[in-house]
Amino acid sequence: MKINGIPYRSIWVSPEDRHAICIFDQTKFPFAVDILTLRDKHAVADAILTMKTRGAPLIGAAGAWGLALSLRTDPGNEAMEESASMLAGTRPTAVNLRWAIDRMLEKLRPVKPEDRYEAARAEAALICDEDVLQNEAIGRNGFDLIKDILKNRPSGKQINILTHCNAGWIATVDWGTALAPIYMAADSGVNVHVWVDETRPRNQGASLTAWELGKHGVPHTVIADNAGGHLMQHGLVDLVIVGTDRVTRTGDVANKIGTYLKALAAKDNNVPFWVALPSTTIDWNIRDGIKEIPIEERSASEVSHIAGMDADGIFRTVRLMPEGSKAANPAFDVTPAHLVTGLITERGCCAASEEGLLSLFPERS
Amino acid sequence: MKINGIPYRSIWVSPEDRHAICIFDQTKFPFAVDILTLRDKHAVADAILTMKTRGAPLIGAAGAWGLALSLRTDPGNEAMEESASMLAGTRPTAVNLRWAIDRMLEKLRPVKPEDRYEAARAEAALICDEDVLQNEAIGRNGFDLIKDILKNRPSGKQINILTHCNAGWIATVDWGTALAPIYMAADSGVNVHVWVDETRPRNQGASLTAWELGKHGVPHTVIADNAGGHLMQHGLVDLVIVGTDRVTRTGDVANKIGTYLKALAAKDNNVPFWVALPSTTIDWNIRDGIKEIPIEERSASEVSHIAGMDADGIFRTVRLMPEGSKAANPAFDVTPAHLVTGLITERGCCAASEEGLLSLFPERS
Repeated sequence: MKINGIPYRSIWVSPEDRHAICIFDQTKFPFAVDILTLRDKHAVADAILTMKTRGAPLIGAAGAWGLALSLRTDPGNEAMEESASMLAGTRPTAVNLRWAIDRMLEKLRPVKPEDRYEAARAEAALICDEDVLQNEAIGRNGFDLIKDILKNRPSGKQINILTHCNAGWIATVDWGTALAPIYMAADSGVNVHVWVDETRPRNQGASLTAWELGKHGVPHTVIADNAGGHLMQHGLVDLVIVGTDRVTRTGDVANKIGTYLKALAAKDNNVPFWVALPSTTIDWNIRDGIKEIPIEERSASEVSHIAGMDADGIFRTVRLMPEGSKAANPAFDVTPAHLVTGLITERGCCAASEEGLLSLFPERS
Repeated sequence: MKINGIPYRSIWVSPEDRHAICIFDQTKFPFAVDILTLRDKHAVADAILTMKTRGAPLIGAAGAWGLALSLRTDPGNEAMEESASMLAGTRPTAVNLRWAIDRMLEKLRPVKPEDRYEAARAEAALICDEDVLQNEAIGRNGFDLIKDILKNRPSGKQINILTHCNAGWIATVDWGTALAPIYMAADSGVNVHVWVDETRPRNQGASLTAWELGKHGVPHTVIADNAGGHLMQHGLVDLVIVGTDRVTRTGDVANKIGTYLKALAAKDNNVPFWVALPSTTIDWNIRDGIKEIPIEERSASEVSHIAGMDADGIFRTVRLMPEGSKAANPAFDVTPAHLVTGLITERGCCAASEEGLLSLFPERS
């Protein structure tokens, strides 16, 4: 997508040095656009660990490139396996990272060490390109839903889409998942407006989603997470699209904390609630999301403290609550399948159910 | 209630000067406990305008005292009416302020000017005392609900109550509304723990509710507003109690934005959802809360910026989102009566319906 009119991906080979990759320092968003050049596996690992690069699909791509860069200096078997473990260990819960590293190893193990660096570069580039194509397909399929809603409306009327957290292009190599249909609609001239949940406590909506929509030129309004239900009661939301961290075989959806509350409000107000995901996000082994998906409990300081820019342009962290009060910080929740209108995948849209998923992925029956 | 073991009200006659009243500077909570001494109507009006004193019942009491103080210097008819108008105009939407000023005028108009100051002092003190008694009654009635839940449980087991925004003692003269039953339970030795919604965007939960619960010694944990649904799904909430700004004749409940989302989650998880209110909050003239209660749209800067204490103890305001992104800030939402388990009033508990309300307030049929 674009930043001030110039198209970018979230990870790319440095135009000045083909042995280095570039990423954005996402910890600086929305206050600065800093591009980092990473020259070896340690730099890549550090960028993932410190969340300078983040988003499940994107850290998979970054991990693949990290492994590729490591093979330039030492393409031997032992070094390759060691580098792979080190990189995969930077975010052990992110399924895409493990998946990307495993795919790289499978490709590279049969290759002669002297040919591995170039083979790894090609495979990492392919992983990136495939991510883009997959998200573009999600975008097309989601855009069809938007077109369906527009069919029954006067031409040019604004369509209001609410999203939670950040499932945009900067969480992937390009396009994003939940935001891909929105970018496609906006680029096609649809009068689309996005309600952006700020997404406490880490505020990915206010800091990342608002930033990327703004830079690409998509009209949007940030709201407190509390406001979505009220907007739906008053007919101000036509559609909800969110991303997901894991979908069960039966269509339960784990996503950023607070997603469940929006799904309840959408159901109560007959607002369609769609979830966009690449099929790699589906966990075919579990059936009951609320019972079986472990929910990460993150640091209380994400609730008690917040960082932002002061009037002098200085980035500062402030405490929001009394010293001595505790805070709890569950990072995700699970939306039961019956609240989900449907799933948007790269193969098409389906009901949030085992039957629905198997209709698109019959090889999993 | 208590601050570090010492009982306080939210407004009281200065112990050093009977011609002055004391309040807390609530804009300093939770970072400082500053007591302000107000010596005339202008100081009182300023304290209400700048939200140094806030909460519908409390600003009614403050307004009454402001009028009383004005009569010390000029108890004449014209001055009294002028002072009343000026004070009532400080927060034109707060129904309790208008009510308290009208009650004072009704009492004072027949009184000879030379006796008015003392009569006004007595009436203002009575308004304060009645507020305390009313809230204490709400507390007793709500505590009965808590006892009902405890009946079916092993003795000493923790009861978890979730609340949204601040309907505590510092929003009233004492006890609070939603928090009154909680204080009563805690003071009676019940093992009560409160989940405190931080309540974006103004964070009254994190800054006020957490503060007053902590100072009185009630165990509590602050959570992002997004977290409540997840906690309910996992059996971690036994009861929700919130306050309200206006209740319709039919039991619809206007309260701080986000209340509706918690009511939906409570319903979905069979968690009782109660609303505590003095009967002065009931608007007997309207029936459909969503259609008829106007929702205040507050400044976008409450969403885009936040204030807190930095590591050096300096109070700072920081920006949370990109410059150029818009924000919207509806301040209240309406929870339809069918999501409300019941209402806790000073006369007892009832269903959130016209029938329920009329059973307690038959004079309104």
